[in-house]
Amino acid sequence: MGPVHTVEFRIRYSETDAMGTYYNSRVLEWFEYGRTELLRALGKPYREMEAQGVWMPVREAHVEYLSPARYDDLLRMTCRLYRSGPARFRFDVEIVDTETGRLVCRGWTEHVVVDRRGRPIRPPPWLIELVEGRRE
Amino acid sequence: MGPVHTVEFRIRYSETDAMGTYYNSRVLEWFEYGRTELLRALGKPYREMEAQGVWMPVREAHVEYLSPARYDDLLRMTCRLYRSGPARFRFDVEIVDTETGRLVCRGWTEHVVVDRRGRPIRPPPWLIELVEGRRE
Amino acid sequence: MGPVHTVEFRIRYSETDAMGTYYNSRVLEWFEYGRTELLRALGKPYREMEAQGVWMPVREAHVEYLSPARYDDLLRMTCRLYRSGPARFRFDVEIVDTETGRLVCRGWTEHVVVDRRGRPIRPPPWLIELVEGRRE
Amino acid sequence: MGPVHTVEFRIRYSETDAMGTYYNSRVLEWFEYGRTELLRALGKPYREMEAQGVWMPVREAHVEYLSPARYDDLLRMTCRLYRSGPARFRFDVEIVDTETGRLVCRGWTEHVVVDRRGRPIRPPPWLIELVEGRRE
Repeated sequence: MGPVHTVEFRIRYSETDAMGTYYNSRVLEWFEYGRTELLRALGKPYREMEAQGVWMPVREAHVEYLSPARYDDLLRMTCRLYRSGPARFRFDVEIVDTETGRLVCRGWTEHVVVDRRGRPIRPPPWLIELVEGRRE
Repeated sequence: MGPVHTVEFRIRYSETDAMGTYYNSRVLEWFEYGRTELLRALGKPYREMEAQGVWMPVREAHVEYLSPARYDDLLRMTCRLYRSGPARFRFDVEIVDTETGRLVCRGWTEHVVVDRRGRPIRPPPWLIELVEGRRE
Repeated sequence: MGPVHTVEFRIRYSETDAMGTYYNSRVLEWFEYGRTELLRALGKPYREMEAQGVWMPVREAHVEYLSPARYDDLLRMTCRLYRSGPARFRFDVEIVDTETGRLVCRGWTEHVVVDRRGRPIRPPPWLIELVEGRRE
Repeated sequence: MGPVHTVEFRIRYSETDAMGTYYNSRVLEWFEYGRTELLRALGKPYREMEAQGVWMPVREAHVEYLSPARYDDLLRMTCRLYRSGPARFRFDVEIVDTETGRLVCRGWTEHVVVDRRGRPIRPPPWLIELVEGRRE
């Protein structure tokens, strides 16, 4: 149900906190990295979308923190993109520790489609095809 | 239903992004600032909680992004703390633009109670009293 | 030698790392906070400068990390602004732990003056007067 | 003059600011990424160093910001590690835009060697050999 993409990355020291694990807000930066690479894999880098006048800001975000992970741990993030409403798109994300296989965290972000000034616009046909026209 | 505290702060340039507004993950840093100041106002700084062996990591987070806000805008954040389960606590947060009165974003974080090693512990009586024993 | 301004702030949990102290890059975010408040104290918020077409991006930064500081420590930051060249301005910054009096870190940022497109411009007279016309 | 390592990475949206380019403090996070990968390439991940009781916190940092770069730009970072004093090590870093070849920024971080409690220690022989024993 919608395109899926997986990337791997390591936790940076800057992303840890005094508890010794990753700081909670950093997960939303990782989610963005996952979205960026999923769109690139689909052949439509987000940068090109903006250049064509289509912005997709986050309207809502949700994260569950399930197990700790530490500096330099290698994580695997899987993102799935689908349409969650006439003018809404959602990315579901899961992040797993590659060594232990444990689910580190999961969540989603929901996005609206707006123009340069932030006004809602109808999703262009190429965007809908990008998201719904593919089957995996 | 549970203690409430309000703080004001300005958006830093470091918290903006190329859209010209605040970057989505920064809201979770703001929420932490709100929690820290609420606990201090209750007479129990979080730092003291950790010194007594009680950690309260975020287990789940949710954010709705409702309107843009820009560098140097003065925001007002209101946090409410309550018990959301036998060993769970939740902070509900709303952030308003002080100039326009508009709701900028809102959300919540849910927290578990753990020891230094991250193992769940029963919430100490003083913590329950702190959260439930007060009425505003 | 140029206007001076002091602010106080606490270290956020998000600014700590797995060593238990503050993460090194966060100091540059603090410096920005210091600059913002110094310019506001001078009666010329940086936001207004940008609205008038004057940007002052960082061209060079230097930080010395002198002693550790932890979550919730109350720090006092003093910034001094002066002209470091015909079209350059520098902010010298010192950050002290309010409890121990120890110097936590110090450094500076040097800024150029550019227009909206990032092209160097001559510093406007009001900017030079702001920086050099006051004596403390 | 000491081991060298190069990595490539893209600018994340979270690393941009309202000027449309990368925010200045993020460069210090990139530098950390470069150090981490250089040490891994040398066969001694920093995580293992800490596990053996050797910490290398940043004592001083310097950055020059030379040209703008934007979201999703692919940058190439080259780090060189050398001994800058009896108990000091320095990483020199250059970051280039892979498309234009332009130097985006450069700088260095200087590190001391400390134990878990942050007390200076003599650099262990394996660390000196790691840094000085190789020729490229």
